[in-house]
Amino acid sequence: MQAIVLGAAAGGGFPQWNSNAPACRRARSGDQATRPRTQASLAASADARHWFLLNASPDLRAQIEATPALQPHEGLRSSPIAGVVLTGGDVDAVAGLLTLRERQALTVFATRRIHDVLDANPIFDVLARDVVRRQTVVPDAPVALTLPDGTPSGLTATLFPVPGKVPLYLEAGLADSDAPPVIEGEETVGVAIGDGRSTLHFIPGCAAMTPALTARLRGAECVLFDGTLWRDDEMLRAGIGSKTGRRMGHMSVAGPEGTMAAFRELGVRRRILIHINNSNPILLEDSPEREAVEAAGWDVAHDGMEIAL
Amino acid sequence: MQAIVLGAAAGGGFPQWNSNAPACRRARSGDQATRPRTQASLAASADARHWFLLNASPDLRAQIEATPALQPHEGLRSSPIAGVVLTGGDVDAVAGLLTLRERQALTVFATRRIHDVLDANPIFDVLARDVVRRQTVVPDAPVALTLPDGTPSGLTATLFPVPGKVPLYLEAGLADSDAPPVIEGEETVGVAIGDGRSTLHFIPGCAAMTPALTARLRGAECVLFDGTLWRDDEMLRAGIGSKTGRRMGHMSVAGPEGTMAAFRELGVRRRILIHINNSNPILLEDSPEREAVEAAGWDVAHDGMEIAL
Repeated sequence: MQAIVLGAAAGGGFPQWNSNAPACRRARSGDQATRPRTQASLAASADARHWFLLNASPDLRAQIEATPALQPHEGLRSSPIAGVVLTGGDVDAVAGLLTLRERQALTVFATRRIHDVLDANPIFDVLARDVVRRQTVVPDAPVALTLPDGTPSGLTATLFPVPGKVPLYLEAGLADSDAPPVIEGEETVGVAIGDGRSTLHFIPGCAAMTPALTARLRGAECVLFDGTLWRDDEMLRAGIGSKTGRRMGHMSVAGPEGTMAAFRELGVRRRILIHINNSNPILLEDSPEREAVEAAGWDVAHDGMEIAL
Repeated sequence: MQAIVLGAAAGGGFPQWNSNAPACRRARSGDQATRPRTQASLAASADARHWFLLNASPDLRAQIEATPALQPHEGLRSSPIAGVVLTGGDVDAVAGLLTLRERQALTVFATRRIHDVLDANPIFDVLARDVVRRQTVVPDAPVALTLPDGTPSGLTATLFPVPGKVPLYLEAGLADSDAPPVIEGEETVGVAIGDGRSTLHFIPGCAAMTPALTARLRGAECVLFDGTLWRDDEMLRAGIGSKTGRRMGHMSVAGPEGTMAAFRELGVRRRILIHINNSNPILLEDSPEREAVEAAGWDVAHDGMEIAL
């Protein structure tokens, strides 16, 4: 199995369109230690010919044009992209579906609840239902990722619930300071994708480490995990936002309840932080926080990063 | 008044994600005579400090990062983008609104009908209604484009109906071969934007030249006009699609009923083709069709093109 990081940043990307904070200014300046990143998405393949996207970010069109493996190579119209697996219904996970219009056969794999979110927005009907199949995936039940013609791709995916929150635009009536209900159901899921020999876990959003998640990830070969924030209050401290990480449904990388601590005894062989917010100092290659995550055995994902399993 | 072409291509962009046609292959190869183009959008400003977008294309995030004038320069969070004027409800005109999340004050100007399309899709509520104002514009009535704080920008816009069709994803039940009802109302509009001295017309989609449109454009200073297709059946002939231009709500550039013919006697000083489909040979700088449009006095828009009026 191979995987390619199409985008490593959290919602808004890096730099974010309306951020003039020092890190975003550095990214715009061409500073080699502060590489820009598009919004989080991964492509995976068992045969290097047919690819499945894990999430469809708003930057998908640019991500395809930056990734030769995802560009058409056959006939006049075609695509190596056979399907999309969704881990949530927020803009940064689903908006790229709008790029996949043009009557190209593919399958969208998601929980019933996430399909419901898409179905509530008629704009996603640009993915014509006679050519783009919607497949409902039951959490914790492995599903074969078939190609549009029904043949096996060699990949199997399991969606599993992780603590999260409802998509931002469905948070009617909640103030920024309110704690949203952390839920664990079909709204936010992780993906375990494998080819029978290797398995990769992709968990771009996770509000807390639970005993079930700990059990699932123990000894795993490769985990790409929510790297949104370094510390829970970093957006407030930097003066660039009013929300804590907890408020946004993300655990932090640092701290006693953070991701590094939670993984310390898990024995995961390859640990990669992804979905990294523009406020997170691990994006700066010369920061002490970057040094700390690398010293703890983590990689920081970047666009174009290739993972061979 | 100044304007910047943020994107010059029609829906899907150039190259289009699933097109392996020769022109898209050339564009991907880095061929200098076949420059890639993102999806159609224009930015306009009276003072070079505050900008209004005409349409928000799916490529908006990349367009902002390619356009220093649209990047934040003040405080920690800010944007020179003061608002967006919409000419239609199709994905290529509105999907970029999803990029403008993050609680940045701005105004979306559109007809009632186009606001209805957005309102029918809860995903656009990421533009929080307490900070992103929706302003309904009555066709043919000039509206001052105010800044978010209510002060004048120096620009005025008039939306005017042009022949068009309903957005693709609202075409329930229509087969590809069906002729959609061409309508002239609030679904598809052009924009006349001006600073009191100069006026620019932006008409990225137009199904036919009408007497009213002829009268409006006669003697105009600058018109950016629908350059989707060279000829009505070019997608069928190339084997890359089943729809005619007419089917998609676009008149063609060439031919006796085409755009070049319709403008021949209008006395428009500056004529620029925009919203150009990847199948249109005018995208190839060495094509006879490109030579023909230029000989007829037209420019072919490209990303980053600056227009000073």
